[in-house]
Amino acid sequence: MENGTAERWGFRGNEVLSTASAITIRGVLNEVMGNINESDPRPVIPLGHGDPSAFPCFRTTQIADDAVADALRSAKFNGYAPTVGVLPARRAIADYLSKDLPYKLSPGDIYMTIGCTQAIEVILTALTRPKANILLPRPGFPFYEARAAYSRLEVRHFDLLPEKGWELDLDAVVSLADENTVGMVVINPGNPCGNVFTYQHLKMIAETAKKLGILVIADEVYDHLTFGSNPFVPMGVFGTIVPVVTVGSISKRWIVPGWRLGWLVTNDPNGILEKHGIVDCIKGFLNISSDPATFIQAAVPQILEKTGDVFFSKIVNILREAADVCYDTIKEIPCITCPNKPEGSMFVMVKLNLSLLEDIKDDIDFCVKLAKEESVVVLPGVAVGLKNWLRVTFAIEPSSLEEGLGRIKVFYLRHAKKQ
Amino acid sequence: MENGTAERWGFRGNEVLSTASAITIRGVLNEVMGNINESDPRPVIPLGHGDPSAFPCFRTTQIADDAVADALRSAKFNGYAPTVGVLPARRAIADYLSKDLPYKLSPGDIYMTIGCTQAIEVILTALTRPKANILLPRPGFPFYEARAAYSRLEVRHFDLLPEKGWELDLDAVVSLADENTVGMVVINPGNPCGNVFTYQHLKMIAETAKKLGILVIADEVYDHLTFGSNPFVPMGVFGTIVPVVTVGSISKRWIVPGWRLGWLVTNDPNGILEKHGIVDCIKGFLNISSDPATFIQAAVPQILEKTGDVFFSKIVNILREAADVCYDTIKEIPCITCPNKPEGSMFVMVKLNLSLLEDIKDDIDFCVKLAKEESVVVLPGVAVGLKNWLRVTFAIEPSSLEEGLGRIKVFYLRHAKKQ
Repeated sequence: MENGTAERWGFRGNEVLSTASAITIRGVLNEVMGNINESDPRPVIPLGHGDPSAFPCFRTTQIADDAVADALRSAKFNGYAPTVGVLPARRAIADYLSKDLPYKLSPGDIYMTIGCTQAIEVILTALTRPKANILLPRPGFPFYEARAAYSRLEVRHFDLLPEKGWELDLDAVVSLADENTVGMVVINPGNPCGNVFTYQHLKMIAETAKKLGILVIADEVYDHLTFGSNPFVPMGVFGTIVPVVTVGSISKRWIVPGWRLGWLVTNDPNGILEKHGIVDCIKGFLNISSDPATFIQAAVPQILEKTGDVFFSKIVNILREAADVCYDTIKEIPCITCPNKPEGSMFVMVKLNLSLLEDIKDDIDFCVKLAKEESVVVLPGVAVGLKNWLRVTFAIEPSSLEEGLGRIKVFYLRHAKKQ
Repeated sequence: MENGTAERWGFRGNEVLSTASAITIRGVLNEVMGNINESDPRPVIPLGHGDPSAFPCFRTTQIADDAVADALRSAKFNGYAPTVGVLPARRAIADYLSKDLPYKLSPGDIYMTIGCTQAIEVILTALTRPKANILLPRPGFPFYEARAAYSRLEVRHFDLLPEKGWELDLDAVVSLADENTVGMVVINPGNPCGNVFTYQHLKMIAETAKKLGILVIADEVYDHLTFGSNPFVPMGVFGTIVPVVTVGSISKRWIVPGWRLGWLVTNDPNGILEKHGIVDCIKGFLNISSDPATFIQAAVPQILEKTGDVFFSKIVNILREAADVCYDTIKEIPCITCPNKPEGSMFVMVKLNLSLLEDIKDDIDFCVKLAKEESVVVLPGVAVGLKNWLRVTFAIEPSSLEEGLGRIKVFYLRHAKKQ
């Protein structure tokens, strides 16, 4: 029926989408995983992902499970929520975040989103206008690049400096910005670098942004997952210097990324975002978007208010120990070096020294062969903007982490250049 | 600090968003509800919404609650899902929908979405390209107009004909289409009209679309909610004539719109959508979008397979009786006429006869004054594309429905023109 008549169909795919979705972490990981040898009897060790929820030691607190189950069973939250989110959840998040701020957020500053993902989508869309550009970190989180491409928002990259603990190259920020620059993104605790910015550096970022007249998008999805010397400081602390839009979620701290519950927060005591139409755009976009499940929203007050330090400390302690194991074992593998011990999030960036390897072309080649030969999955750095680096997650069961790093060592020995 | 320096901030809101979100049902309803007199001791009667989940008689089945609670408690579904959705859910939906089709859908034809809303977003985005246009019904569901405006996809309206049971004006469809037309939208059972299309009319739609070389987007979010003489026929039945993209969800049949669980389905045995890049675009957009909560997806097989006819019949019977009450009572109110008895969905469109009213300017004025004087909320037709009509939902508790219609009668008597 269709033979020979295909040309007369008037539709074809939207070309922007192929560009926008060309590089995603999930896409690259799927490609790497496609190389795993299924006849290898050993379990696959996943060091590529940012989702430890499948490991028993990372199971969420029962308080969170109970809160969601109670909201579901009440049958009070089967209906649509307001597009900005249900009020008790907005109030609870305002209170939760205000604990770390020098001023108090109101429920009106909080917008419920479908994970942190949708919060990023909302703010990038709100900022888009003809000729506008945004400054993104390299390495970074490629979802920003994808959504910017989709919105036709121009991207300019500034470097994070490994020799300075992955601090921003603020000189580059200043020289990249022009009259069409609308904002800059700061991810803290760092994905993919595992760094945690000091109060002083964050303040310098805020002052730089103020000087440039741009807002700061603070990606704090890994908030409070810190285990080094720098405590977590929310960028919102500097909301009186520069308007800060914070994106976050319960995904990482509560280890429930699949619940798809996040938020967008305007930290803007001076009301600049409102005055410049950004708040209206946030609301406008939420009006024509889907929402997080209402009963999960309704569980947020219980989750935030009742979860105790015992759970948080347990998770942070596991991450600290895993980061230590990871950092120490990497030192024993000559072809990869780690410039900075991770102090936060779930990742570390390590540099590949290809000159020590016999037959490895680049980071993708390394990851593909590692998957094939050792059933270990690691993310090629190119997926986060740094070619010939690797992003390694240490947020997995400790015994698996040791096993995985051990296999990387064996892989190195097999591929090491003969001296 | 900000005084006098506002101009130097380089960001301002995205203007597309104010256009795109200008008319939404929620926005118009909020405006109408803003007129309710809070000193009226009577309860507000909501005849404007499409969400009866708050009414005890519309409570979802315990099977659905249990399925979600079990998936949550298992702790197996706290992590990210694949961007296309979890496989068991895709398989269950393929089986569920295939029961009513002359061919079998495969799990690969199903994409999980955040309610039907996101499914609409996905397909409109996938079809967008420069100069493309899409044909939408009038009256219709304004979310299509909003998302098309946001994507800069041109909209052309064809009429639904009240004198023909709200069938499509297919002559208008043919004359509106040109070489840049990519698709047309068919909502069945009808929102806002409460009609159910015959097999014969749906087949004519498919043949018309085939002739024009455009695909059909079949919005079947109210599937199986029919209670008149026409049975529900899925548009996918005609997938061998024309490629059909069906959007649906558990929101309406299971009365859980707040769970945000929907689907997009390619009914396309000839593989035309794949060949024309639409399938890649659907996947590409889902790659850069948020997903429905994983544990809710995981509950889908239990929900679809275990819910029995007792629950479905109960809901349909309530709707049938409510539609009867609504239709009969409206006949007693001279200023509104209902051209067709509703046979499906949760709504009916009624025409306002302003010449019988003393001091009512138009549909908005009618709804605003009705809210103010009688605490009854009805949707002005202008929100769905028909000025001086009203969309009335009958999907509320029967006693409230009678009370609400009674108040409209009183309202009419108070505003009736003296003979």
